[in-house]
Amino acid sequence: MPDPATTADTLDTLDTPAAIVDTARMQRNIDRMQARMNALGVAFRPHAKTSKSPAVVRAQIAAGARGVTVSTLKEAARFHAEGIDDILYAVGMVPGKLPQALALRRQGCDLKIITDSVASAQAIVAFGAEHGERFEVWIEIDSDGHRSGIRPDEPALIEVGRVLHDGGARLGGVMTHAGSSYDLDTPEALAAMAEQERAACVEAAEALRAAGLPCPVVSVGSTPTALSAARLDGVTEVRAGVYVFFDLVMRNVGVCTEDELALSVLTTVIGHQAEKGWAIVDAGWMAMSRDRGTQKQKQDFGYGQVCDLDGRVLPGYVLSGANQEHGILSREGSHDEAIAERFPVGTRLRILPNHACATGAQFPEYHALNADGTLATWSRFHGW
Amino acid sequence: MPDPATTADTLDTLDTPAAIVDTARMQRNIDRMQARMNALGVAFRPHAKTSKSPAVVRAQIAAGARGVTVSTLKEAARFHAEGIDDILYAVGMVPGKLPQALALRRQGCDLKIITDSVASAQAIVAFGAEHGERFEVWIEIDSDGHRSGIRPDEPALIEVGRVLHDGGARLGGVMTHAGSSYDLDTPEALAAMAEQERAACVEAAEALRAAGLPCPVVSVGSTPTALSAARLDGVTEVRAGVYVFFDLVMRNVGVCTEDELALSVLTTVIGHQAEKGWAIVDAGWMAMSRDRGTQKQKQDFGYGQVCDLDGRVLPGYVLSGANQEHGILSREGSHDEAIAERFPVGTRLRILPNHACATGAQFPEYHALNADGTLATWSRFHGW
Repeated sequence: MPDPATTADTLDTLDTPAAIVDTARMQRNIDRMQARMNALGVAFRPHAKTSKSPAVVRAQIAAGARGVTVSTLKEAARFHAEGIDDILYAVGMVPGKLPQALALRRQGCDLKIITDSVASAQAIVAFGAEHGERFEVWIEIDSDGHRSGIRPDEPALIEVGRVLHDGGARLGGVMTHAGSSYDLDTPEALAAMAEQERAACVEAAEALRAAGLPCPVVSVGSTPTALSAARLDGVTEVRAGVYVFFDLVMRNVGVCTEDELALSVLTTVIGHQAEKGWAIVDAGWMAMSRDRGTQKQKQDFGYGQVCDLDGRVLPGYVLSGANQEHGILSREGSHDEAIAERFPVGTRLRILPNHACATGAQFPEYHALNADGTLATWSRFHGW
Repeated sequence: MPDPATTADTLDTLDTPAAIVDTARMQRNIDRMQARMNALGVAFRPHAKTSKSPAVVRAQIAAGARGVTVSTLKEAARFHAEGIDDILYAVGMVPGKLPQALALRRQGCDLKIITDSVASAQAIVAFGAEHGERFEVWIEIDSDGHRSGIRPDEPALIEVGRVLHDGGARLGGVMTHAGSSYDLDTPEALAAMAEQERAACVEAAEALRAAGLPCPVVSVGSTPTALSAARLDGVTEVRAGVYVFFDLVMRNVGVCTEDELALSVLTTVIGHQAEKGWAIVDAGWMAMSRDRGTQKQKQDFGYGQVCDLDGRVLPGYVLSGANQEHGILSREGSHDEAIAERFPVGTRLRILPNHACATGAQFPEYHALNADGTLATWSRFHGW
């Protein structure tokens, strides 16, 4: 599909608030990750939940990604409609969602599903037998205790593997996500977590193989670990999502710098409380999301870091508060008594978000900013 | 317009996660607020930002509301298309949005706009003069220091009034929103804040009138103050939004009980970490929103209070954590070692949200649950 045409709008005329994607930064982020995966000798399967946008995913595929990861079956359906067949639905399958998964496979989508329990595995094989469908199922491994999955040393791993394999499903592999990497902020800790993620997933694969079960795929990943792994022996593919835009949480984790953040929210100053050092902007939490992911990190950016219209960071200026459609812009530490003169009513600014996945989801579309200042509209979707 | 037809789905079959509106509870909430406003002798202008749904707003109008309040010009356009003419856009007007406001008025919408600065007032009258349009403008009053507005004793109040009136705009009145009422949790403090809100707005109106300026409308409101005001002398209308659904934040403020909450998120159990006492559900922060509004209140519900499929609260069970599409359900205080037996994979539950405005915004539509268990789809809109 061709890239969307540019619109007549510019950053000076676009209705605010609006979600802006700096296309040059995004492309650099995509190229950096793909080059790293190529050097490590693994396939790369980006997580489309961050953007939910065909234009973004097309750029990831064009750079060398093999298939995508999704967090909802709606994403799977939309990206399959865009021509992508190789899709991993990376949330534990439940009986109620099997009819949707079946329908996608019947439409030619090479959908992979995951499970981490005997009960779900039994439901999948029973449904598959009933409908004559050989589902490809991966087993979710718990590598860091942060959420779902079976630990590689649990007997349940082999039990689930046998239920799937003996029940006629295709046991496609193992996958894990070291989500607790988001809580770290030193290169040493990140590298150690990447190794922990790798080792746990490879251990699970080897346990399945030792039990006589197939395990062709060994899939790991999170943005912090993908960018911190020193080696990926035994791993066949890596998944990561937020790297495509990066955000302030990732900046605090230490895997990007502020000038690599590709998503920002365009906003307009609508008023002031000059005595308090506040400018009021039209980006509240409905635009930024309620995500306060930097609150407990080494630098708290409130609801976001303020930049000028060209995207240059204005050090110390953050969204310190947010109501639904009002953001409170202030200087950290000391009141800016000249705030009303610095940012008069009508001033346009851009705000870097804490969490790109959450902020993007607040908008019906992205406005892709090209190097020449033109904008294109990139659709994204919403809901389940 | 007729009510939407019911669908073939029930709570047992609907895809999850989904936003469920208990229509009987919603109607009781609407009737309670309208009866209170009638008794206090004021008009009621509900804030449509909570639902962004024509079906909900129709029920509010049918119960006696006069016009609506909106937080975006998109809401204004959508509700005007539904046949509502009397609309207050309750976010400070900026020059860049005047063309949209003009277009709405030219389409027959009796749109009111607000300002709290001389600069904005000047821009409004200049644009109005240029386009031959007499905008109706209300002045925003700061009654509690929480966000925008002019304090009633500030000279800027009269100055803005004169700019508007002398510049040919229609000075329609004053309005305020005591948003800091959300931080309170005793009837005495709430009643005092309601009186503070009322007194500040009436003082502003009287100051304008004493200066020879018109001020027909005196508009106040927030859900907590609207439900706590003992008298509203001098006030002509009240605005409130979240009362239509209520939520856990309002329960902690003390203006509703848990069994009045009309919005919940339908979810499915997808797995367990039994040793930790966790059930994993398919309502993560993408469904609940990232709003943690109960975190600093007297009872912290995490990302939401867990209920059974009939909406009965399961005391002590909350969403203690959330990733994008995963919620962690656990019992507060002590691990439930039987969590996997209590909530097997496939179990359907309903989660009461912290903040109905934020949770509703995560969904493309509501599923309205009738007393007989049937469901109807109510559209809602998204974005700006």
